[in-house]
Amino acid sequence: MIRVGIVGATGVVGQQFVVALQNHPWFRIAWLAASERSANQSYGEALRDRKTGAVRWFCAEEPSADILAMPVETTSSFDPDRVDLLFTAIESEQARELEPVFARTTPVISTASAFRYEPDVPLVIPGINSHHLALLRHQQRRRGWRGFIAPNPNCTTVGLAITLRPLHERFGVTGVVMTSLQALSGAGRSPGVIGLDILDNVIPFIPGEEEKVQRETQKILGTLEDDGIRPAPFAVSCTCTRVNVSEGHTEAVFVGLSKPASLDEVRDALESFTGDFADRDLPSAPRRMILVRDDPYRPQPRLDRTVDDGMTTVIGRLRVDGVLPNGVKYVLVSHNTKMGAAKGCVLTAEVMVRDGYLGKPVPAAPGRAPA
Amino acid sequence: MIRVGIVGATGVVGQQFVVALQNHPWFRIAWLAASERSANQSYGEALRDRKTGAVRWFCAEEPSADILAMPVETTSSFDPDRVDLLFTAIESEQARELEPVFARTTPVISTASAFRYEPDVPLVIPGINSHHLALLRHQQRRRGWRGFIAPNPNCTTVGLAITLRPLHERFGVTGVVMTSLQALSGAGRSPGVIGLDILDNVIPFIPGEEEKVQRETQKILGTLEDDGIRPAPFAVSCTCTRVNVSEGHTEAVFVGLSKPASLDEVRDALESFTGDFADRDLPSAPRRMILVRDDPYRPQPRLDRTVDDGMTTVIGRLRVDGVLPNGVKYVLVSHNTKMGAAKGCVLTAEVMVRDGYLGKPVPAAPGRAPA
Amino acid sequence: MIRVGIVGATGVVGQQFVVALQNHPWFRIAWLAASERSANQSYGEALRDRKTGAVRWFCAEEPSADILAMPVETTSSFDPDRVDLLFTAIESEQARELEPVFARTTPVISTASAFRYEPDVPLVIPGINSHHLALLRHQQRRRGWRGFIAPNPNCTTVGLAITLRPLHERFGVTGVVMTSLQALSGAGRSPGVIGLDILDNVIPFIPGEEEKVQRETQKILGTLEDDGIRPAPFAVSCTCTRVNVSEGHTEAVFVGLSKPASLDEVRDALESFTGDFADRDLPSAPRRMILVRDDPYRPQPRLDRTVDDGMTTVIGRLRVDGVLPNGVKYVLVSHNTKMGAAKGCVLTAEVMVRDGYLGKPVPAAPGRAPA
Amino acid sequence: MIRVGIVGATGVVGQQFVVALQNHPWFRIAWLAASERSANQSYGEALRDRKTGAVRWFCAEEPSADILAMPVETTSSFDPDRVDLLFTAIESEQARELEPVFARTTPVISTASAFRYEPDVPLVIPGINSHHLALLRHQQRRRGWRGFIAPNPNCTTVGLAITLRPLHERFGVTGVVMTSLQALSGAGRSPGVIGLDILDNVIPFIPGEEEKVQRETQKILGTLEDDGIRPAPFAVSCTCTRVNVSEGHTEAVFVGLSKPASLDEVRDALESFTGDFADRDLPSAPRRMILVRDDPYRPQPRLDRTVDDGMTTVIGRLRVDGVLPNGVKYVLVSHNTKMGAAKGCVLTAEVMVRDGYLGKPVPAAPGRAPA
Repeated sequence: MIRVGIVGATGVVGQQFVVALQNHPWFRIAWLAASERSANQSYGEALRDRKTGAVRWFCAEEPSADILAMPVETTSSFDPDRVDLLFTAIESEQARELEPVFARTTPVISTASAFRYEPDVPLVIPGINSHHLALLRHQQRRRGWRGFIAPNPNCTTVGLAITLRPLHERFGVTGVVMTSLQALSGAGRSPGVIGLDILDNVIPFIPGEEEKVQRETQKILGTLEDDGIRPAPFAVSCTCTRVNVSEGHTEAVFVGLSKPASLDEVRDALESFTGDFADRDLPSAPRRMILVRDDPYRPQPRLDRTVDDGMTTVIGRLRVDGVLPNGVKYVLVSHNTKMGAAKGCVLTAEVMVRDGYLGKPVPAAPGRAPA
Repeated sequence: MIRVGIVGATGVVGQQFVVALQNHPWFRIAWLAASERSANQSYGEALRDRKTGAVRWFCAEEPSADILAMPVETTSSFDPDRVDLLFTAIESEQARELEPVFARTTPVISTASAFRYEPDVPLVIPGINSHHLALLRHQQRRRGWRGFIAPNPNCTTVGLAITLRPLHERFGVTGVVMTSLQALSGAGRSPGVIGLDILDNVIPFIPGEEEKVQRETQKILGTLEDDGIRPAPFAVSCTCTRVNVSEGHTEAVFVGLSKPASLDEVRDALESFTGDFADRDLPSAPRRMILVRDDPYRPQPRLDRTVDDGMTTVIGRLRVDGVLPNGVKYVLVSHNTKMGAAKGCVLTAEVMVRDGYLGKPVPAAPGRAPA
Repeated sequence: MIRVGIVGATGVVGQQFVVALQNHPWFRIAWLAASERSANQSYGEALRDRKTGAVRWFCAEEPSADILAMPVETTSSFDPDRVDLLFTAIESEQARELEPVFARTTPVISTASAFRYEPDVPLVIPGINSHHLALLRHQQRRRGWRGFIAPNPNCTTVGLAITLRPLHERFGVTGVVMTSLQALSGAGRSPGVIGLDILDNVIPFIPGEEEKVQRETQKILGTLEDDGIRPAPFAVSCTCTRVNVSEGHTEAVFVGLSKPASLDEVRDALESFTGDFADRDLPSAPRRMILVRDDPYRPQPRLDRTVDDGMTTVIGRLRVDGVLPNGVKYVLVSHNTKMGAAKGCVLTAEVMVRDGYLGKPVPAAPGRAPA
Repeated sequence: MIRVGIVGATGVVGQQFVVALQNHPWFRIAWLAASERSANQSYGEALRDRKTGAVRWFCAEEPSADILAMPVETTSSFDPDRVDLLFTAIESEQARELEPVFARTTPVISTASAFRYEPDVPLVIPGINSHHLALLRHQQRRRGWRGFIAPNPNCTTVGLAITLRPLHERFGVTGVVMTSLQALSGAGRSPGVIGLDILDNVIPFIPGEEEKVQRETQKILGTLEDDGIRPAPFAVSCTCTRVNVSEGHTEAVFVGLSKPASLDEVRDALESFTGDFADRDLPSAPRRMILVRDDPYRPQPRLDRTVDDGMTTVIGRLRVDGVLPNGVKYVLVSHNTKMGAAKGCVLTAEVMVRDGYLGKPVPAAPGRAPA
């Protein structure tokens, strides 16, 4: 088994990592790190609110008794001999400081945006641009690290980039207009979105989100070069809003294409897309990268966010758009805290194992240092 | 006072007409018509649910005691000598049958879509294209009516067309991409949207809505000709969704322009737009047709739908769009059951009075037959 | 396997029966009946909305391909040789007519209230008063039926009666005051609760509900006599409200007891209560009838409705009440469409099999006629 | 005009004081105090979020330009010569420290719970127990203050105590069982209730709330004695829950009475209750203290919280309760941030003016020092 650590283990995303990893066939949770306040307690104790005694656990799936009994440590107790891989679920500022320290010795898969835009850092959605992981070798050489930093993209980027990939490949994308209706869970719990603000309401602004989506989509669908990624040559324009939905981002997408394509051809491109691990048997991979629905009332976040445990992007309402050149439009739902966050990172780790960036557990002996 | 009738007076939109008219300085409610089931009762009685005794009144403003005591009649009791103007709040199929009968003698302002797309029927948003009312003369001649049919546009079209008008006038619009987040009240109550379907959810489809918005926007911003309207020469592409908001449609709009325009120029065009009744003192007109907010978190439907009693379209998040030619983007909130429905129709009626399409009550004697 | 039929199979409760039965180890769905409109189609076709093509499926669990391919028939095609047991999910008026016809030959477990209050009809919550099933013999003799009618209680009664049972048994209950905060799913979808009515709101009235809870609780906890049930000798007073929750009824309960009891004793009575099938291995039985939580913020419907797939009643906030004699108070959450409806009925059927009211499938040969 | 200061002016309750006072005929806002962070700015500037520039204003009514231009000071700049009365909207701990300092010279009406339970402190709901204000004289003598501290009750207590008062007076109350369904605004915004926690949910616990309601109700309906209040001799037992409603607490109340009373008599007692300022013309007083509705679906918080600008308690569903002695039950809706908070305090201040506890502005000269 590959020994993994979770940094920021008591927060919402940290908890999602626990859920995605606790019964994993290849990975074993070996280290839980959190802030001073949580340290020197068991994980179960650290989840308790001091004032009220309430357990602050936010996932539908329960943590196992083993995990609850594990000690929580501070990041200063980090020991590279005890873990083969780190998942980080911390704020961007903290990530900027801590992740390079970890990466000297240890691979880091990060949910923070701190390093997403650096030239030697790939921004990988598993199944979409796994080959960008090759940039990690350049990163290691350039920075003199034995480990590396591999961030995941913003949760709103994920569903968009997944659905654009087959369209770009088959027809060429020339421009993208997108409006998102994002779930509350994307804002976290510190305090995230206040109930009074979102009841009977829409909040039309999420700071920094639109810029992230625009930039990240171009990087993810860009071309791998020796020392970086050449961004995909199409513009992306978004309006990101928050709606009163717990989980599952909905996005209304309008895409211009390089050449005329019938809706049947577009649909075929989307449905037949298998991702770049099609023939591989990864534990967290969805059966289908993209599911296209015919029911005009779908996708709906409450009904479609759970397809393949939130790892499938569900599309519906595929139609012609009359404004963009050779335009098509559709609606997608993507689970922002599954494929869009912790479980997506775990799937990336699985791709890394298969592609030799991490110790191969099957069938070879586990725990090998990253190549 | 001009004597008005409300057809479909007990329904949601009919109630909104009662609210918009009951204290009106120019109009007096003289006739309430509804289905057989409600007829031969007072309005107050007709609002009661037979089974439960509950009053089915859906507006925030209460109906006056006078209105509650008025008799409700069926449409078969229609007498052109008793009313000078009709507001209709009925289904499209019924409108197709009844409105031409009424229009033989009496002006009809309709909330139904039945006649919106006929060549001799103007589709007017007061303040935006009031001059299209001139087409009513052609309609009267062509159909041999003393009255006319003047429908209002779909509630989702209204906010969009209002904001596009100054942009089209100043810079020329070349294309529009719009995603709406529409309120529940737009779906009515028969049964409208079921609570179970919209809780923690988005519904990405509203039958017929997108086609209406696309077609109506072009007609409203089109050019008046002798016998019809030449549609505005730009395409409109929409995705219309339903969100868990009671009142107030939110729209994320992306607009391509004919020539480069700075955000300051665009903002100035929007803010300085006074509508075509700028210098007129109409009772239901908003102080401002368009209000532009600087706060990036605005407009929000719950906070902005009530500006000027729902008659102002509120814009925010004005930004450059990088996909459409000379593109700009913004978010708007428009009150779908005020400017977007009954009270918008009443404002249209006020414009008609001022422009001589209806008996002038001030200062001339009221009750004059429509010209 | 025991062959079961579902009457009203396309409705919400019918769908819940499909989910509860489709992988059942003892029961096999052999007949699906619905209204004329659905008949002569496959179940999959019958679920489609004719106008929109949308599939009207409301459960989180998907129906199997086998079920989707089954034909839907009308109730007039009922053939007692094809089914050993019927589950009915129809309106009360229809139940009053149809169920006696079925019961001449076939056992009927009903979700309708039509027969709940008849003296020779037991009102059983499995685990709570299964011994009341003995009244079915009297019913059969009296009515000359080979089958019987066994209705389930109202969904709001279920959680209350389950938690009162161990208190009544151990301490004696003298009076109960209860306020419910009920979920939308209890109101069904025809149209159930309209979104506009419940958003940012509470509806303080559910017709008939309070009377049902009061009467049914006394019957369920009453004493079995030869020809009926003597009601439990304590009063129940309720206020039933609707809140904006999809599934899971929350109830604030205040109970007077016959003798003083410490909170520890009360808690012990609740926690140690195993139900009357404690030592039996029924497929749909929960691991625990009642779960008592310490976290003062629990139970919450969203978090606790799914414990043991909605078959466990979750209690929290156990405290002393100072108004009722020897009073205690607590909050419970009960899944209104699992234990409170279809799956509760399936558990009743399992109890019937074990107790000899229905053909025993294990280990004896399946399909035996009801005793 | 009486010069008033608002302490905690930038918070939610402080904003509600601004709304309740800015157009008041007797009171003039003369001093705005807030934390160091807000000081030395105009009120308008202090409302802006530093990071986002968004205006943090939470009331439906807008602040006037005059108020927005007023300077915000810290409490250390307090000068008794500049204000005749203080309204405080601060946390309980801060109130415990600051309010006695203010009260040495100046009357203080407080929304904090810090002093509510002290023997020489009256707990007044205007219209219900205004005569308890006489205790302020004892408080002043005992503490050697020229001013005083008069706290308002908890918002959940207010509607309950208002409706119990006429019942206690006419029939005698022997015990009260109450379950509240409380609005989000009661929890404030720091951060109050997180959207993710309340969507599709009920939270069954509000720390300290039940104890407050129980204790305060007894004090408010208690008997004034020379040096304190003898609590009313009946027990109150509550369960307080939070539901997804923005404003307006709903309470399901069960009341035992000392003697039999028909529902007509109970209804008459409630409806005819005019409060103890019936014949007085106070600017913030509601037309009716209590409104009883016949519609069984009322009161609903969204529809009934705004009756008389939130100053009227609306009752419905009046029925017999079979558990408590001579029991009746009903549902009430009370606006928790109007009568239940700032505007209720302003009404208390108006009562104080009329009863001589504060400088009489009409017709006498304003600004008189408190007696």
